[in-house]
Amino acid sequence: MGGHFGDRLAAAVREKGVVCVGLDPRVALIPPVVVADRVEPSVDARVRSAIADFHRVVIDAVADLVPVVKLQLAFYEQYGVAGMEAFRDTVAAACDAGLLVIADGKRNDVPSTAEAYARAFLQPGAERGEELPAAFEVDALTVNPFLGRDSVEPFVEQAVGAGKGAFVLVKTSNPGSGDLQDLVLADGRPLYAAVAELTASLGAPFVGASGYAPVGAVVGCTHPEAAAEVRALLPHAMLLVVGYGAQAGDALGASRCFQPGMGGAIVNASRSVTYDAPRAGTLAELRASIRGNVERMAADLEAAAATSVS
Amino acid sequence: MGGHFGDRLAAAVREKGVVCVGLDPRVALIPPVVVADRVEPSVDARVRSAIADFHRVVIDAVADLVPVVKLQLAFYEQYGVAGMEAFRDTVAAACDAGLLVIADGKRNDVPSTAEAYARAFLQPGAERGEELPAAFEVDALTVNPFLGRDSVEPFVEQAVGAGKGAFVLVKTSNPGSGDLQDLVLADGRPLYAAVAELTASLGAPFVGASGYAPVGAVVGCTHPEAAAEVRALLPHAMLLVVGYGAQAGDALGASRCFQPGMGGAIVNASRSVTYDAPRAGTLAELRASIRGNVERMAADLEAAAATSVS
Repeated sequence: MGGHFGDRLAAAVREKGVVCVGLDPRVALIPPVVVADRVEPSVDARVRSAIADFHRVVIDAVADLVPVVKLQLAFYEQYGVAGMEAFRDTVAAACDAGLLVIADGKRNDVPSTAEAYARAFLQPGAERGEELPAAFEVDALTVNPFLGRDSVEPFVEQAVGAGKGAFVLVKTSNPGSGDLQDLVLADGRPLYAAVAELTASLGAPFVGASGYAPVGAVVGCTHPEAAAEVRALLPHAMLLVVGYGAQAGDALGASRCFQPGMGGAIVNASRSVTYDAPRAGTLAELRASIRGNVERMAADLEAAAATSVS
Repeated sequence: MGGHFGDRLAAAVREKGVVCVGLDPRVALIPPVVVADRVEPSVDARVRSAIADFHRVVIDAVADLVPVVKLQLAFYEQYGVAGMEAFRDTVAAACDAGLLVIADGKRNDVPSTAEAYARAFLQPGAERGEELPAAFEVDALTVNPFLGRDSVEPFVEQAVGAGKGAFVLVKTSNPGSGDLQDLVLADGRPLYAAVAELTASLGAPFVGASGYAPVGAVVGCTHPEAAAEVRALLPHAMLLVVGYGAQAGDALGASRCFQPGMGGAIVNASRSVTYDAPRAGTLAELRASIRGNVERMAADLEAAAATSVS
């Protein structure tokens, strides 16, 4: 991997566009054609290979269309150790296909514990030596800011040292995000603006040649006005835009997260890309459906970005 | 497991006291006597068994002295799949010893994803059926509230249905906790008071016969005034008190978290209990050191509680 994460992501976006494909395993939704005729020695082996095989199909289908995939850790953890093995299988397949990989874990803890999470997800295997098992190395991790600056710094330090990144939650996509994030502070700002400021200051010392820091922000396109405000507060942050598709965020909302020329943001969609292939009787048809979903989404985003500029 | 989590924890505290032992694996700190002469076929197997064996020694040493152990997920995740296997081994050993088990994962996400985390940690294995692998079932999980009410509700629903619990972060122990948690809102309250109110309202419908809800709160004893305020705001919550020992929280700070008769709180210590056994040349000496650490801590807490009442 190596290099500056902000620069690497910006370059990949320039080359392949802004769509980020979310890989959220839900075993019951994996198309039968992926797992047909497979016989496995155990439930663990069956679930691991179903997830990994399905994600290999998705990655195959989209690798030339998108710069990055996002793996939602909760959906792997729900399948126990088998799920975490499938997480590693999927990361390996995405890396082999030249994709950047974000682990969406929303991790956070007190500093000495945050260091352990940073080692789990952001420490290069080669640095760990032969005395330690491999962990879950990816290119970037989402981080929850609730515990404050000293709880995010260990992620930033580990990321910067290894050419990796962190995306700090600033304004999330769920309906309840306002319960805390929109609370108005004594100085008149909403809480998410204070989080945006914290995020900007964590990234400021490390802005790369591309103009982007290795510290990005997670923003829901389901709240377009807040998204536009966060965009303005974070000129040097790559935004990871969430809530598109199944969570009812749309291209117009997402377009508020772009800088001119559709820069500075990636837009994630998970279910609406990977599980919306109703008539896929063969693997080729499944790949074609998934490609179609990505191409439609990319076109919708481009059209919305053009509208919002004009 | 079964039953009401608030009631189960309150009963266990009445029986065995308020100390919660934190099991945070740091392989480099495991006393040599635990792993002596062990030959394992791989790094993964060596790390898994070192962690599991060490924790079996700790559990053996403390099972009659404490009601509950807390496993910090970050320290397991840093060892990859081997670490997560060791997590399960440790949970099994703690359950066999009659201890309650809290997973300290500080998980949180949008509702559909929070459901997956809730399944990962709070769904009883028996409910999962034979088609799904076992996940990481424990008695209770710590939950980060930053995404708002709808992001915590899936944990509460899963917990209530299964006789399990959730501990919501309200005011954490780290020096930077004030960066966001102490921000003053337009109505004059600090943010942590708003989080305490959210926590209280999530637990209110489910208060058990003991007077405690299955929704507790995480509070750092490093901020005694804030801890006392949270205690007053959450009369029906069990507090999981963190920051004792290695993080410089003390018994007097922790005593602000108790209700009369040392009720309503458990006090966690990790490093200062499990890794402070400098002259343990045999397993029996190691167990005796760990027991001594717990007994000293329990005595300190009792003395502080007596002082703060008088």
